[in-house]
Amino acid sequence: MSAPLPSEKAMVPFVSVENMMRLVHHVGIETMLFELTDVIENDFRRWETFDKTPRVASHSHDGVIELMPTSDGTTYSFKYVNGHPKNMAEGLQTVTALGLLAHVSTGYPVLLTEMTLLTALRTAATSAMAARHLAPHGARTMAIIGNGAQAEFQALAMKAVCGIKNVRLFDIDPRATAKASRNLEGSGLAITACKTAEAAIEGAEIVTTCTADKQYNTILTDNMIGAGIHINAIGGDCPGKTELHKDILLRSDTFVEYPPQTRIEGEIQQMDADFPVTELWKVVTGEEPGRKDHRQITLFDSVGFAIEDFSALCYVRNRIAGTDFFQDLDIVADPDDPRDLFGMLQRAR
Amino acid sequence: MSAPLPSEKAMVPFVSVENMMRLVHHVGIETMLFELTDVIENDFRRWETFDKTPRVASHSHDGVIELMPTSDGTTYSFKYVNGHPKNMAEGLQTVTALGLLAHVSTGYPVLLTEMTLLTALRTAATSAMAARHLAPHGARTMAIIGNGAQAEFQALAMKAVCGIKNVRLFDIDPRATAKASRNLEGSGLAITACKTAEAAIEGAEIVTTCTADKQYNTILTDNMIGAGIHINAIGGDCPGKTELHKDILLRSDTFVEYPPQTRIEGEIQQMDADFPVTELWKVVTGEEPGRKDHRQITLFDSVGFAIEDFSALCYVRNRIAGTDFFQDLDIVADPDDPRDLFGMLQRAR
Repeated sequence: MSAPLPSEKAMVPFVSVENMMRLVHHVGIETMLFELTDVIENDFRRWETFDKTPRVASHSHDGVIELMPTSDGTTYSFKYVNGHPKNMAEGLQTVTALGLLAHVSTGYPVLLTEMTLLTALRTAATSAMAARHLAPHGARTMAIIGNGAQAEFQALAMKAVCGIKNVRLFDIDPRATAKASRNLEGSGLAITACKTAEAAIEGAEIVTTCTADKQYNTILTDNMIGAGIHINAIGGDCPGKTELHKDILLRSDTFVEYPPQTRIEGEIQQMDADFPVTELWKVVTGEEPGRKDHRQITLFDSVGFAIEDFSALCYVRNRIAGTDFFQDLDIVADPDDPRDLFGMLQRAR
Repeated sequence: MSAPLPSEKAMVPFVSVENMMRLVHHVGIETMLFELTDVIENDFRRWETFDKTPRVASHSHDGVIELMPTSDGTTYSFKYVNGHPKNMAEGLQTVTALGLLAHVSTGYPVLLTEMTLLTALRTAATSAMAARHLAPHGARTMAIIGNGAQAEFQALAMKAVCGIKNVRLFDIDPRATAKASRNLEGSGLAITACKTAEAAIEGAEIVTTCTADKQYNTILTDNMIGAGIHINAIGGDCPGKTELHKDILLRSDTFVEYPPQTRIEGEIQQMDADFPVTELWKVVTGEEPGRKDHRQITLFDSVGFAIEDFSALCYVRNRIAGTDFFQDLDIVADPDDPRDLFGMLQRAR
């Protein structure tokens, strides 16, 4: 190859899966979850500065592929993410993702990264951020219904951010529960593997649902949810996919990320279009109250929103500066004379 | 690092700018433009099998950042692309892009590639495909108004696909014309550098406009366009950016890619919402006539559509198979047990 070396502007830092894992271990997973929670909360506090749009979804029989863009006017981000519940049976991830940051002023990318791990981390951090405002004061016990890829991240984020000490696990597949129990050994959390969802929620102040089936489901029925509980509903996140019986929603105060997206994808897709919800960012800014009393049932109807990815991408960009947790990728054609793209190509011959 | 090697499924073929240039020279640029034209035409022929949506644009003062997704039900693609006319003055590309192909059935990416060069190639190939159906029979001379990054690609595509022999160049910046003239030396085309747009279009059967200013502009006025001309309008491609006087549109038969997008972004944004247009794919299938007689003025109001990127991405994916024109990128986290994302992370410590 006689091609001249690509210019610096042509180079985009890329964080591979391997480098993301190195970064997580370098920072420490609980520290990273804690820092991500703060970064996300800071961006929720300036919610109104962001361009917001429901994600662009391409649905198929087997799953969904989504693009999630946003911008704060200075930095642009998007995430590519899929959701294919049937993947698991084929030995594939249900959710994989990659993300990009770019300068709004030039359109030039400044970061490309794996986001399968990063999405797991930011989803757990977002849950912890919501729980910080909505869970009963002094909550120490969380139930996790659905012990798949998201479970351990949820447990550690709630520990790091909210001081959760006990985690009660249930999954319809006991092997998933065994996997999560094993992975959380030595985490400092007291783990209890339960045989039923009813047993798992015993004594829990926070109930997290993170199952993966792409269908209407009733993971929690009305009689299972007593006064004062905070429900952190992660798994109902696309049209036709819910986890809670609608009677629970009628007794809860429901908090959401971005209503136009959540009404399509969240638990509230079961409800009328004017079902009352509170935007979580307004709780963060103090514009709306979070938990009001110890008998209130709060529900974070989480579907994941682009601003959380924006926060996570900016965090990674800052965290990798000055490290070797990335490689430079020659992905932007950048001829010396910008009009001379063809000349650059010719000279590479 | 003690991390085990990433699995094969975790690896996504990545085509860097350097490898894209190697691929172009390996295939030959005119051959590649010719083959791309056929690939795009084949996908236009099965237009109805694609999921279509106007691109998702994030506009700012300086430019636009867009995501362009589509899917044929088996393969999903998207392109990230920016358009920042003011970049040129800062020594940056006006348009940079990257693209991705994925399996619809699993959501797993199967190709990641630079698309700055590939967009230049597919845009020229799409123009040539349209000209094959719309330009006067036996056209041998093309004018190119706007001699920036797209000019040479347009010239060679029209040569390879339509048999153009003479190219007449004009740009308000004579250095751009000099650059394009120099780059096209030895191409087999007779190149004439012109001092005015009027001089450039003399004797031209095809007039290509590809200027980059993000503003309403009148590159061509009504009196400049005589009977029988095919206008290939490339540069008017976002809201507020046009190149033709509307009187030309009133005398022309206008052909477009995807009306819901072109009515926002194309030359026809100047016209009423019901201004009659013909969808180019219907000309390709024979459902609608292309050029009807030798006095007709045809206008391809090109803004670029996601299906053209899909075609180009599939072409690259096929063309790099069995070559070394790509590298494997560790961008998909793929634990042995898909539910054990956390365990994969732990074991990498």
